[in-house]
Amino acid sequence: MARRTPSLSDFQHRSAATGKARGRFALDRIDPGAKPFSTGSKARDKARVGELALEIDRLQDLFYADRRFKLLVVLQGTDTSGKDGTIRGVFGQTSALGVHAVGWKAPTADERARDYLWRIHQRVPADGEIVIFNRSHYEDVLVPTVNGWITPEQTAQRYEQINAFEKMLTENGTVICKFMLHISKDEQRTRLQERLDDPTKHWKFAAGDLEVRKQWDAYQQAYQNAIAATGTPWAPWTIVPADSKTHRNLMIATAIVQTLQGLKLHYPPGSPELAAIRVE
Amino acid sequence: MARRTPSLSDFQHRSAATGKARGRFALDRIDPGAKPFSTGSKARDKARVGELALEIDRLQDLFYADRRFKLLVVLQGTDTSGKDGTIRGVFGQTSALGVHAVGWKAPTADERARDYLWRIHQRVPADGEIVIFNRSHYEDVLVPTVNGWITPEQTAQRYEQINAFEKMLTENGTVICKFMLHISKDEQRTRLQERLDDPTKHWKFAAGDLEVRKQWDAYQQAYQNAIAATGTPWAPWTIVPADSKTHRNLMIATAIVQTLQGLKLHYPPGSPELAAIRVE
Repeated sequence: MARRTPSLSDFQHRSAATGKARGRFALDRIDPGAKPFSTGSKARDKARVGELALEIDRLQDLFYADRRFKLLVVLQGTDTSGKDGTIRGVFGQTSALGVHAVGWKAPTADERARDYLWRIHQRVPADGEIVIFNRSHYEDVLVPTVNGWITPEQTAQRYEQINAFEKMLTENGTVICKFMLHISKDEQRTRLQERLDDPTKHWKFAAGDLEVRKQWDAYQQAYQNAIAATGTPWAPWTIVPADSKTHRNLMIATAIVQTLQGLKLHYPPGSPELAAIRVE
Repeated sequence: MARRTPSLSDFQHRSAATGKARGRFALDRIDPGAKPFSTGSKARDKARVGELALEIDRLQDLFYADRRFKLLVVLQGTDTSGKDGTIRGVFGQTSALGVHAVGWKAPTADERARDYLWRIHQRVPADGEIVIFNRSHYEDVLVPTVNGWITPEQTAQRYEQINAFEKMLTENGTVICKFMLHISKDEQRTRLQERLDDPTKHWKFAAGDLEVRKQWDAYQQAYQNAIAATGTPWAPWTIVPADSKTHRNLMIATAIVQTLQGLKLHYPPGSPELAAIRVE
């Protein structure tokens, strides 16, 4: 029997905020160690990621010229899940002219004095731009929920606020791709230990990372709940088995290329006057 | 029979986005020449506005110290309806430290490249701040609708986007007061002519104002529809009979004082350590 070709939709959740039961989504049914998009050869997978990264560069140029859309890519995942590596591996061939990455840290005093979406909204893409959020407004439902800083009612309210915010963005021309980089607790141990063992990676390590690791189960539950509540038809979540870095990049690059191709981008029609001009 | 004391709620619309029929609201049932809050004497009304403006200054200081809320005041109305005059008359006694007015003009290229709420969100008040919008995101449903730049479906979509946006703001501590400055077409003629007759007022006149005046009925209808759809429990509209400038200021100042008083503001509790300090 032929192995069924995997589809991105097998790893997507988009039925929140619709009539369908949101309970259908189960993060723990997706194996972080799976490689559904692998060719079976790591070398071929890596070559394929390289090809896709070049294709994203080509499509980004077209996306910028077309100007009908804005693309927002959200990367979420626990420490060491590979958010930085994804940006390097998937968007590394793309010009900084058209792609911006925004890394979200703890909010400043000015930011805390407004709603949590205030700073997020300021950094959304303009027409023709691709913006990658390295962490995002989802930290504002994950961290406060795990730490008990907000009530379950406030968490539910934030899900609704985020759904309405993302809906408004998409209705105004933004395409939103949200990726949850799904690694196992064992893989995180390996990666944290690597950071400790390699002085050139010490800058990536914070003592707080070990505290967060102790809350592993609570964070998995918070991700489960957040994805179930905010994977909408207009802004679906894609869960990326990410224990393998190559597979992670392969899957995300595939999704980005499919998304851009689906927009039927085209260069704006040429001007007949321009075609008649001869530069002396 | 004693004349019934007018209540602000008689001039408010707040039932949109609830189960109640939004059709209930009728702008043309409110007389722009009415003076329901007048004492019957213009001199006494003016004196009362002065007292209320001082009270707003006192309450603003408390509002700033309290820091639990943000106040957003939206002023909408056709040309010459008195938006600038309201800011001068009602907030003229209040320190610029705690109150900012934002005048919205046609969007820049950078602003047009994002959703229309992008620039609005950037200027919302922080904790303890009062921000007055002189025109607002409502221009983005009024102007494009009257000029046919967006479809009725897009207009309805924007009402929903605005309701969700304002709901999110209020759920995050913002109090929103929206005032529609309601003048008659005759009163507008008088005021536009005054601007033409007085060289010191020429800067307030633009040739386009006369074009907009020709669309009077279309704008009244657009206001009717927008207020009916966006006067919500969390962000109600107050319709201000505004042919009389004194009455306009009296009514808005009354509403602002009532809103601030309703928040039960208080200075944060003093620190016992501070009370023990003696400055040498």
